[in-house]
Amino acid sequence: MSGKASDEDLALLGEHALRYVESGFTVGIGTGKAASAFIRALGHSELKIRAVPTSERSAELARRVGIELRPLEGELNVALDGADEVDANLDLIKGFGGALLREKIVAAAARYYVILVGEEKLVRRLGQRGSLPVEVLAFGVDLCARRIEALGLRPQVRRAEKGQEFSTDNGNLILDCAVEEIVEPARLERELAAIPGVLGSGLFVGVADEVLVCAAGGKISALKRRGTKAKA
Amino acid sequence: MSGKASDEDLALLGEHALRYVESGFTVGIGTGKAASAFIRALGHSELKIRAVPTSERSAELARRVGIELRPLEGELNVALDGADEVDANLDLIKGFGGALLREKIVAAAARYYVILVGEEKLVRRLGQRGSLPVEVLAFGVDLCARRIEALGLRPQVRRAEKGQEFSTDNGNLILDCAVEEIVEPARLERELAAIPGVLGSGLFVGVADEVLVCAAGGKISALKRRGTKAKA
Repeated sequence: MSGKASDEDLALLGEHALRYVESGFTVGIGTGKAASAFIRALGHSELKIRAVPTSERSAELARRVGIELRPLEGELNVALDGADEVDANLDLIKGFGGALLREKIVAAAARYYVILVGEEKLVRRLGQRGSLPVEVLAFGVDLCARRIEALGLRPQVRRAEKGQEFSTDNGNLILDCAVEEIVEPARLERELAAIPGVLGSGLFVGVADEVLVCAAGGKISALKRRGTKAKA
Repeated sequence: MSGKASDEDLALLGEHALRYVESGFTVGIGTGKAASAFIRALGHSELKIRAVPTSERSAELARRVGIELRPLEGELNVALDGADEVDANLDLIKGFGGALLREKIVAAAARYYVILVGEEKLVRRLGQRGSLPVEVLAFGVDLCARRIEALGLRPQVRRAEKGQEFSTDNGNLILDCAVEEIVEPARLERELAAIPGVLGSGLFVGVADEVLVCAAGGKISALKRRGTKAKA
Protein backbone atom coordinates (compact mmCIF):
# COMPACT_ATOMS: atom_id res chain seq x y z
CA MET A 1 0.00 0.00 0.00
CA SER A 2 1.33 3.43 -0.85
CA GLY A 3 0.64 6.96 0.37
CA LYS A 4 -2.62 8.80 0.63
CA ALA A 5 -4.35 9.88 -2.57
CA SER A 6 -3.61 13.57 -3.24
CA ASP A 7 -6.26 16.14 -4.10
CA GLU A 8 -5.12 15.87 -7.73
CA ASP A 9 -5.58 12.08 -7.63
CA LEU A 10 -9.09 12.50 -6.22
CA ALA A 11 -9.92 15.10 -8.87
CA LEU A 12 -8.89 12.56 -11.53
CA LEU A 13 -11.00 9.92 -9.82
CA GLY A 14 -14.00 12.28 -9.74
CA GLU A 15 -13.62 12.99 -13.46
CA HIS A 16 -13.26 9.30 -14.23
CA ALA A 17 -16.43 8.49 -12.29
CA LEU A 18 -18.52 10.61 -14.70
CA ARG A 19 -18.63 7.59 -17.00
CA TYR A 20 -21.19 6.01 -14.65
CA VAL A 21 -23.61 8.88 -15.18
CA GLU A 22 -25.88 9.73 -18.09
CA SER A 23 -28.01 12.80 -18.67
CA GLY A 24 -31.47 12.21 -17.25
CA PHE A 25 -30.17 10.13 -14.35
CA THR A 26 -31.04 10.63 -10.71
CA VAL A 27 -27.73 10.30 -8.92
CA GLY A 28 -26.98 9.69 -5.24
CA ILE A 29 -24.02 11.80 -4.17
CA GLY A 30 -21.92 10.89 -1.17
CA THR A 31 -20.03 12.85 1.45
CA GLY A 32 -16.30 13.32 2.00
CA LYS A 33 -13.22 14.18 -0.05
CA ALA A 34 -13.64 11.65 -2.87
CA ALA A 35 -17.38 12.29 -3.14
CA SER A 36 -16.75 16.03 -3.23
CA ALA A 37 -14.28 15.59 -6.10
CA PHE A 38 -17.01 13.72 -7.97
CA ILE A 39 -19.62 16.40 -7.18
CA ARG A 40 -17.31 19.09 -8.55
CA ALA A 41 -16.64 17.07 -11.72
CA LEU A 42 -20.38 16.53 -12.13
CA GLY A 43 -21.10 20.24 -11.71
CA HIS A 44 -18.51 21.17 -14.31
CA SER A 45 -19.69 18.56 -16.80
CA GLU A 46 -22.37 18.90 -19.47
CA LEU A 47 -24.48 16.17 -17.83
CA LYS A 48 -28.05 17.13 -16.96
CA ILE A 49 -28.91 15.14 -13.88
CA ARG A 50 -30.71 15.52 -10.58
CA ALA A 51 -28.95 14.54 -7.39
CA VAL A 52 -29.94 13.24 -3.97
CA PRO A 53 -27.34 14.39 -1.43
CA THR A 54 -26.29 12.33 1.61
CA SER A 55 -25.50 15.34 3.82
CA GLU A 56 -26.10 19.04 4.25
CA ARG A 57 -22.46 19.53 3.38
CA SER A 58 -22.74 17.74 0.03
CA ALA A 59 -26.02 19.49 -0.70
CA GLU A 60 -24.32 22.83 -0.24
CA LEU A 61 -21.40 21.93 -2.50
CA ALA A 62 -23.77 20.55 -5.14
CA ARG A 63 -25.85 23.74 -5.15
CA ARG A 64 -22.68 25.80 -5.43
CA VAL A 65 -21.60 23.94 -8.59
CA GLY A 66 -25.08 24.18 -10.11
CA ILE A 67 -26.49 20.69 -9.55
CA GLU A 68 -30.25 20.35 -9.15
CA LEU A 69 -31.21 18.53 -5.96
CA ARG A 70 -34.25 16.46 -5.09
CA PRO A 71 -35.48 14.39 -2.17
CA LEU A 72 -35.04 10.63 -2.19
CA GLU A 73 -38.00 9.03 -3.90
CA GLY A 74 -37.94 5.82 -5.89
CA GLU A 75 -34.77 4.23 -7.16
CA LEU A 76 -31.60 6.07 -8.02
CA ASN A 77 -29.95 5.20 -11.33
CA VAL A 78 -26.59 5.23 -9.63
CA ALA A 79 -24.96 6.48 -6.43
CA LEU A 80 -21.30 7.34 -5.91
CA ASP A 81 -19.58 7.81 -2.59
CA GLY A 82 -16.25 7.41 -0.81
CA ALA A 83 -15.39 4.92 1.92
CA ASP A 84 -12.99 4.67 4.84
CA GLU A 85 -12.10 1.01 4.30
CA VAL A 86 -12.72 -1.42 1.44
CA ASP A 87 -11.96 -5.14 1.69
CA ALA A 88 -11.53 -7.77 -1.02
CA ASN A 89 -15.29 -8.57 -1.02
CA LEU A 90 -16.01 -4.86 -1.58
CA ASP A 91 -17.49 -4.65 1.90
CA LEU A 92 -16.96 -1.25 3.44
CA ILE A 93 -16.51 0.78 6.56
CA LYS A 94 -17.94 4.27 6.19
CA GLY A 95 -18.92 7.07 8.51
CA PHE A 96 -15.68 8.79 9.47
CA GLY A 97 -17.39 11.89 8.01
CA GLY A 98 -20.55 11.32 10.08
CA ALA A 99 -23.03 10.87 7.21
CA LEU A 100 -23.33 7.08 7.36
CA LEU A 101 -27.07 6.77 7.93
CA ARG A 102 -28.17 8.78 4.89
CA GLU A 103 -25.32 7.24 2.91
CA LYS A 104 -26.61 3.79 3.76
CA ILE A 105 -30.13 4.71 2.69
CA VAL A 106 -28.89 6.17 -0.59
CA ALA A 107 -26.73 3.09 -1.21
CA ALA A 108 -29.76 0.86 -0.69
CA ALA A 109 -31.87 2.97 -3.05
CA ALA A 110 -29.30 2.86 -5.87
CA ARG A 111 -29.48 0.41 -8.74
CA TYR A 112 -25.70 0.65 -9.04
CA TYR A 113 -23.44 1.74 -6.21
CA VAL A 114 -19.92 2.87 -6.94
CA ILE A 115 -17.24 3.62 -4.35
CA LEU A 116 -14.35 6.00 -5.03
CA VAL A 117 -11.20 5.63 -2.95
CA GLY A 118 -7.49 6.19 -2.89
CA GLU A 119 -5.65 2.89 -2.63
CA GLU A 120 -4.70 3.59 0.99
CA LYS A 121 -8.31 2.65 1.85
CA LEU A 122 -7.91 -0.93 0.66
CA VAL A 123 -7.59 -3.36 3.55
CA ARG A 124 -7.16 -7.08 3.88
CA ARG A 125 -9.78 -7.15 6.63
CA LEU A 126 -12.29 -4.50 7.69
CA GLY A 127 -11.35 -2.88 10.99
CA GLN A 128 -7.68 -2.48 10.11
CA ARG A 129 -7.81 1.27 10.52
CA GLY A 130 -9.14 0.63 14.03
CA SER A 131 -12.49 2.40 14.09
CA LEU A 132 -16.13 1.72 13.25
CA PRO A 133 -18.66 4.58 13.55
CA VAL A 134 -22.20 3.83 14.73
CA GLU A 135 -25.05 6.38 14.77
CA VAL A 136 -27.22 6.20 17.89
CA LEU A 137 -30.19 8.01 19.37
CA ALA A 138 -28.87 10.41 22.05
CA PHE A 139 -31.52 9.13 24.48
CA GLY A 140 -30.08 5.62 24.20
CA VAL A 141 -26.36 6.38 23.98
CA ASP A 142 -25.51 4.82 27.35
CA LEU A 143 -27.37 1.58 26.64
CA CYS A 144 -25.94 1.39 23.12
CA ALA A 145 -22.39 1.89 24.40
CA ARG A 146 -22.81 -0.91 26.93
CA ARG A 147 -24.32 -3.30 24.39
CA ILE A 148 -21.59 -2.48 21.86
CA GLU A 149 -18.94 -3.11 24.50
CA ALA A 150 -20.54 -6.49 25.13
CA LEU A 151 -19.84 -7.26 21.44
CA GLY A 152 -16.13 -6.63 22.08
CA LEU A 153 -15.87 -3.10 20.63
CA ARG A 154 -14.77 -0.01 22.57
CA PRO A 155 -17.17 2.86 21.84
CA GLN A 156 -16.59 6.55 22.51
CA VAL A 157 -18.91 9.45 21.79
CA ARG A 158 -17.54 11.53 18.92
CA ARG A 159 -16.72 15.13 19.85
CA ALA A 160 -16.77 18.19 17.61
CA GLU A 161 -13.97 20.76 17.48
CA LYS A 162 -14.92 22.59 20.64
CA GLY A 163 -15.35 19.41 22.67
CA GLN A 164 -19.15 19.32 22.52
CA GLU A 165 -20.86 16.15 21.33
CA PHE A 166 -20.84 15.83 17.54
CA SER A 167 -24.40 15.89 16.19
CA THR A 168 -25.25 14.26 12.86
CA ASP A 169 -27.45 15.91 10.23
CA ASN A 170 -30.23 13.79 11.75
CA GLY A 171 -29.65 15.17 15.25
CA ASN A 172 -28.12 11.97 16.62
CA LEU A 173 -24.77 10.99 18.14
CA ILE A 174 -21.90 8.95 16.72
CA LEU A 175 -20.13 6.29 18.74
CA ASP A 176 -16.66 5.77 17.28
CA CYS A 177 -15.95 2.18 18.18
CA ALA A 178 -12.37 0.97 18.46
CA VAL A 179 -12.23 -2.41 16.72
CA GLU A 180 -9.79 -5.15 15.88
CA GLU A 181 -9.99 -6.80 12.48
CA ILE A 182 -13.61 -7.82 11.88
CA VAL A 183 -13.91 -11.49 11.05
CA GLU A 184 -17.63 -11.57 10.15
CA PRO A 185 -18.78 -8.11 9.05
CA ALA A 186 -22.31 -9.25 8.04
CA ARG A 187 -22.86 -10.76 11.44
CA LEU A 188 -21.53 -7.73 13.31
CA GLU A 189 -23.73 -5.47 11.17
CA ARG A 190 -26.81 -7.51 12.17
CA GLU A 191 -25.83 -7.60 15.83
CA LEU A 192 -25.39 -3.83 15.89
CA ALA A 193 -28.68 -3.25 14.06
CA ALA A 194 -30.49 -5.32 16.70
CA ILE A 195 -29.43 -3.03 19.58
CA PRO A 196 -32.29 -0.70 20.53
CA GLY A 197 -31.13 2.87 19.84
CA VAL A 198 -28.58 1.93 17.17
CA LEU A 199 -29.79 3.74 14.05
CA GLY A 200 -27.15 2.56 11.64
CA SER A 201 -23.57 1.29 11.59
CA GLY A 202 -20.68 2.14 9.32
CA LEU A 203 -20.57 -1.45 8.05
CA PHE A 204 -21.78 -1.61 4.44
CA VAL A 205 -21.85 -5.30 3.61
CA GLY A 206 -22.81 -6.57 0.19
CA VAL A 207 -23.94 -3.24 -1.23
CA ALA A 208 -21.06 -1.89 -3.34
CA ASP A 209 -21.20 -3.00 -6.98
CA GLU A 210 -17.91 -1.50 -8.00
CA VAL A 211 -14.95 0.24 -6.40
CA LEU A 212 -12.80 2.69 -8.33
CA VAL A 213 -9.33 2.85 -6.85
CA CYS A 214 -6.85 5.61 -7.51
CA ALA A 215 -3.18 4.82 -6.88
CA ALA A 216 -0.73 7.59 -6.02
CA GLY A 217 0.25 9.06 -9.38
CA GLY A 218 -3.28 8.82 -10.74
CA LYS A 219 -3.58 5.26 -12.06
CA ILE A 220 -7.20 4.21 -11.73
CA SER A 221 -8.45 0.64 -11.56
CA ALA A 222 -11.92 -0.82 -11.10
CA LEU A 223 -12.85 -3.68 -8.77
CA LYS A 224 -16.19 -5.33 -9.48
CA ARG A 225 -18.38 -7.38 -7.21
CA ARG A 226 -18.36 -11.07 -7.90
CA GLY A 227 -21.68 -12.89 -7.54
CA THR A 228 -25.02 -11.42 -6.59
CA LYS A 229 -25.51 -8.32 -4.58
CA ALA A 230 -27.10 -8.66 -1.17
CA LYS A 231 -30.35 -6.90 -0.45
CA ALA A 232 -29.80 -4.64 2.56
CA MET B 1 -62.22 -11.62 25.28
CA SER B 2 -64.36 -8.95 26.86
CA GLY B 3 -64.65 -5.16 26.54
CA LYS B 4 -61.99 -2.53 26.83
CA ALA B 5 -60.51 -1.82 30.25
CA SER B 6 -62.16 1.27 31.73
CA ASP B 7 -60.27 4.17 33.28
CA GLU B 8 -61.16 2.74 36.70
CA ASP B 9 -59.73 -0.65 35.71
CA LEU B 10 -56.51 1.01 34.57
CA ALA B 11 -56.30 3.02 37.80
CA LEU B 12 -56.52 -0.27 39.72
CA LEU B 13 -53.85 -1.75 37.49
CA GLY B 14 -51.59 1.26 38.08
CA GLU B 15 -52.01 0.92 41.85
CA HIS B 16 -51.37 -2.80 41.71
CA ALA B 17 -48.16 -2.23 39.73
CA LEU B 18 -46.61 -0.29 42.62
CA ARG B 19 -45.62 -3.63 44.16
CA TYR B 20 -42.83 -3.87 41.57
CA VAL B 21 -41.25 -0.67 42.84
CA GLU B 22 -39.18 0.03 45.95
CA SER B 23 -37.93 3.33 47.29
CA GLY B 24 -34.47 4.04 45.91
CA PHE B 25 -35.26 2.44 42.56
CA THR B 26 -34.69 3.99 39.18
CA VAL B 27 -37.86 3.24 37.23
CA GLY B 28 -38.54 3.35 33.51
CA ILE B 29 -41.99 4.80 32.87
CA GLY B 30 -43.87 4.10 29.69
CA THR B 31 -46.30 6.05 27.55
CA GLY B 32 -50.06 5.64 27.01
CA LYS B 33 -53.16 5.13 29.11
CA ALA B 34 -52.01 2.22 31.27
CA ALA B 35 -48.56 3.72 31.79
CA SER B 36 -50.16 7.05 32.74
CA ALA B 37 -52.32 5.30 35.35
CA PHE B 38 -49.13 3.83 36.80
CA ILE B 39 -47.34 7.21 36.76
CA ARG B 40 -50.24 8.77 38.66
CA ALA B 41 -50.24 5.97 41.23
CA LEU B 42 -46.47 6.35 41.61
CA GLY B 43 -46.78 10.10 42.12
CA HIS B 44 -49.46 9.68 44.79
CA SER B 45 -47.54 6.94 46.61
CA GLU B 46 -44.94 7.34 49.36
CA LEU B 47 -42.25 5.74 47.19
CA LYS B 48 -39.10 7.80 46.68
CA ILE B 49 -37.84 6.91 43.25
CA ARG B 50 -36.30 8.51 40.18
CA ALA B 51 -37.86 7.89 36.81
CA VAL B 52 -36.67 7.75 33.21
CA PRO B 53 -39.57 8.74 30.94
CA THR B 54 -40.12 7.26 27.47
CA SER B 55 -41.75 10.38 26.01
CA GLU B 56 -42.17 14.11 26.49
CA ARG B 57 -45.79 13.39 27.35
CA SER B 58 -44.94 11.00 30.18
CA ALA B 59 -42.20 13.33 31.42
CA GLU B 60 -44.76 16.11 31.69
CA LEU B 61 -47.24 13.95 33.59
CA ALA B 62 -44.51 12.67 35.91
CA ARG B 63 -43.35 16.20 36.72
CA ARG B 64 -46.95 17.22 37.40
CA VAL B 65 -47.38 14.45 39.99
CA GLY B 66 -44.05 15.22 41.63
CA ILE B 67 -41.78 12.48 40.28
CA GLU B 68 -38.08 13.24 39.94
CA LEU B 69 -36.77 12.56 36.44
CA ARG B 70 -33.33 11.66 35.20
CA PRO B 71 -31.69 10.72 31.92
CA LEU B 72 -31.13 7.07 31.02
CA GLU B 73 -27.79 5.96 32.41
CA GLY B 74 -26.92 2.48 33.58
CA GLU B 75 -29.52 -0.16 34.31
CA LEU B 76 -33.05 0.51 35.48
CA ASN B 77 -34.29 -1.52 38.44
CA VAL B 78 -37.59 -1.97 36.69
CA ALA B 79 -39.59 -0.47 33.82
CA LEU B 80 -43.37 -0.52 33.42
CA ASP B 81 -45.27 0.26 30.24
CA GLY B 82 -48.43 -0.57 28.33
CA ALA B 83 -48.70 -2.47 25.06
CA ASP B 84 -51.04 -2.64 22.07
CA GLU B 85 -50.91 -6.43 21.69
CA VAL B 86 -49.59 -9.22 23.91
CA ASP B 87 -49.34 -12.83 22.75
CA ALA B 88 -48.96 -16.04 24.74
CA ASN B 89 -45.13 -15.80 24.67
CA LEU B 90 -45.39 -12.28 26.13
CA ASP B 91 -44.13 -10.87 22.85
CA LEU B 92 -45.59 -7.46 22.15
CA ILE B 93 -46.66 -4.94 19.58
CA LYS B 94 -46.19 -1.39 20.81
CA GLY B 95 -46.06 2.05 19.27
CA PHE B 96 -49.68 3.03 18.64
CA GLY B 97 -48.79 6.02 20.88
CA GLY B 98 -45.69 6.81 18.82
CA ALA B 99 -43.08 6.37 21.58
CA LEU B 100 -41.79 2.95 20.54
CA LEU B 101 -38.12 3.79 20.02
CA ARG B 102 -37.49 5.24 23.49
CA GLU B 103 -39.76 2.57 24.96
CA LYS B 104 -37.62 -0.13 23.36
CA ILE B 105 -34.44 1.41 24.72
CA VAL B 106 -35.92 1.68 28.21
CA ALA B 107 -37.17 -1.92 28.02
CA ALA B 108 -33.68 -3.10 27.08
CA ALA B 109 -32.12 -1.12 29.94
CA ALA B 110 -34.48 -2.57 32.57
CA ARG B 111 -33.55 -5.51 34.78
CA TYR B 112 -37.24 -6.35 35.00
CA TYR B 113 -39.81 -5.25 32.43
CA VAL B 114 -43.49 -5.31 33.30
CA ILE B 115 -46.35 -4.70 30.88
CA LEU B 116 -49.75 -3.38 32.02
CA VAL B 117 -52.76 -4.09 29.80
CA GLY B 118 -56.50 -4.51 29.76
CA GLU B 119 -57.39 -8.03 28.67
CA GLU B 120 -58.61 -6.76 25.28
CA LYS B 121 -54.92 -6.47 24.32
CA LEU B 122 -54.30 -10.21 24.62
CA VAL B 123 -54.08 -11.89 21.22
CA ARG B 124 -53.52 -15.38 20.00
CA ARG B 125 -51.07 -14.11 17.40
CA LEU B 126 -49.38 -10.72 17.09
CA GLY B 127 -50.82 -8.67 14.25
CA GLN B 128 -54.43 -9.49 15.08
CA ARG B 129 -55.30 -5.82 15.57
CA GLY B 130 -53.96 -5.26 12.06
CA SER B 131 -51.21 -2.70 12.53
CA LEU B 132 -47.49 -2.58 13.30
CA PRO B 133 -45.84 0.84 13.78
CA VAL B 134 -42.26 1.36 12.56
CA GLU B 135 -40.19 4.49 13.22
CA VAL B 136 -38.15 5.64 10.22
CA LEU B 137 -35.82 8.47 9.32
CA ALA B 138 -37.79 11.00 7.25
CA PHE B 139 -34.98 11.08 4.67
CA GLY B 140 -35.45 7.35 4.06
CA VAL B 141 -39.22 7.02 4.33
CA ASP B 142 -39.73 6.15 0.67
CA LEU B 143 -37.06 3.45 0.63
CA CYS B 144 -38.28 2.06 3.96
CA ALA B 145 -41.86 1.90 2.74
CA ARG B 146 -40.80 0.00 -0.39
CA ARG B 147 -38.65 -2.45 1.56
CA ILE B 148 -41.40 -3.00 4.13
CA GLU B 149 -43.87 -3.66 1.31
CA ALA B 150 -41.45 -6.25 -0.04
CA LEU B 151 -41.81 -8.03 3.32
CA GLY B 152 -45.57 -8.26 2.74
CA LEU B 153 -46.71 -5.38 4.97
CA ARG B 154 -48.64 -2.34 3.79
CA PRO B 155 -47.07 0.81 5.27
CA GLN B 156 -48.63 4.26 5.49
CA VAL B 157 -47.15 7.42 6.93
CA ARG B 158 -48.92 8.31 10.19
CA ARG B 159 -50.70 11.67 10.12
CA ALA B 160 -51.40 14.02 13.02
CA GLU B 161 -54.79 15.63 13.65
CA LYS B 162 -54.44 18.34 11.05
CA GLY B 163 -53.25 15.98 8.34
CA GLN B 164 -49.56 16.88 8.60
CA GLU B 165 -47.03 14.08 9.06
CA PHE B 166 -46.85 12.88 12.65
CA SER B 167 -43.39 13.57 14.10
CA THR B 168 -42.01 11.47 16.97
CA ASP B 169 -40.24 12.98 19.99
CA ASN B 170 -37.05 12.08 18.09
CA GLY B 171 -38.09 14.04 15.00
CA ASN B 172 -38.76 10.98 12.86
CA LEU B 173 -41.79 9.54 11.04
CA ILE B 174 -43.96 6.54 11.85
CA LEU B 175 -45.03 4.06 9.19
CA ASP B 176 -48.18 2.32 10.36
CA CYS B 177 -47.95 -1.02 8.62
CA ALA B 178 -51.08 -3.03 7.95
CA VAL B 179 -50.28 -6.63 8.82
CA GLU B 180 -51.85 -10.05 8.90
CA GLU B 181 -51.13 -12.33 11.83
CA ILE B 182 -47.36 -12.47 12.29
CA VAL B 183 -46.05 -16.03 12.22
CA GLU B 184 -42.44 -15.34 13.20
CA PRO B 185 -42.21 -12.06 15.12
CA ALA B 186 -38.48 -12.43 15.95
CA ARG B 187 -37.67 -12.90 12.30
CA LEU B 188 -39.80 -9.96 11.17
CA GLU B 189 -38.19 -7.76 13.85
CA ARG B 190 -34.73 -8.64 12.51
CA GLU B 191 -35.77 -8.11 8.89
CA LEU B 192 -37.20 -4.69 9.72
CA ALA B 193 -34.11 -3.71 11.74
CA ALA B 194 -31.91 -4.54 8.75
CA ILE B 195 -33.62 -1.99 6.47
CA PRO B 196 -31.52 1.17 6.18
CA GLY B 197 -33.55 4.02 7.66
CA VAL B 198 -35.68 1.85 9.95
CA LEU B 199 -34.88 3.11 13.46
CA GLY B 200 -37.05 0.74 15.43
CA SER B 201 -40.16 -1.39 15.05
CA GLY B 202 -43.08 -1.91 17.38
CA LEU B 203 -42.22 -5.60 17.74
CA PHE B 204 -40.89 -6.28 21.25
CA VAL B 205 -39.82 -9.91 21.17
CA GLY B 206 -38.45 -11.68 24.22
CA VAL B 207 -38.17 -8.60 26.42
CA ALA B 208 -41.25 -8.60 28.72
CA ASP B 209 -40.69 -10.46 31.98
CA GLU B 210 -44.23 -10.18 33.23
CA VAL B 211 -47.61 -8.95 31.99
CA LEU B 212 -50.26 -7.68 34.38
CA VAL B 213 -53.69 -8.10 32.86
CA CYS B 214 -56.79 -6.33 34.07
CA ALA B 215 -60.14 -7.89 33.17
CA ALA B 216 -63.26 -5.73 32.93
CA GLY B 217 -64.48 -5.44 36.49
CA GLY B 218 -60.98 -5.07 37.88
CA LYS B 219 -59.72 -8.62 38.33
CA ILE B 220 -55.94 -8.55 37.86
CA SER B 221 -53.81 -11.53 36.88
CA ALA B 222 -50.08 -11.86 36.20
CA LEU B 223 -48.51 -13.74 33.28
CA LYS B 224 -44.83 -14.55 33.67
CA ARG B 225 -42.25 -15.36 31.06
CA ARG B 226 -41.29 -18.98 30.85
CA GLY B 227 -37.64 -19.72 30.16
CA THR B 228 -34.82 -17.26 29.66
CA LYS B 229 -35.22 -13.73 28.49
CA ALA B 230 -33.73 -12.82 25.15
CA LYS B 231 -31.07 -10.14 24.97
CA ALA B 232 -32.36 -7.45 22.65
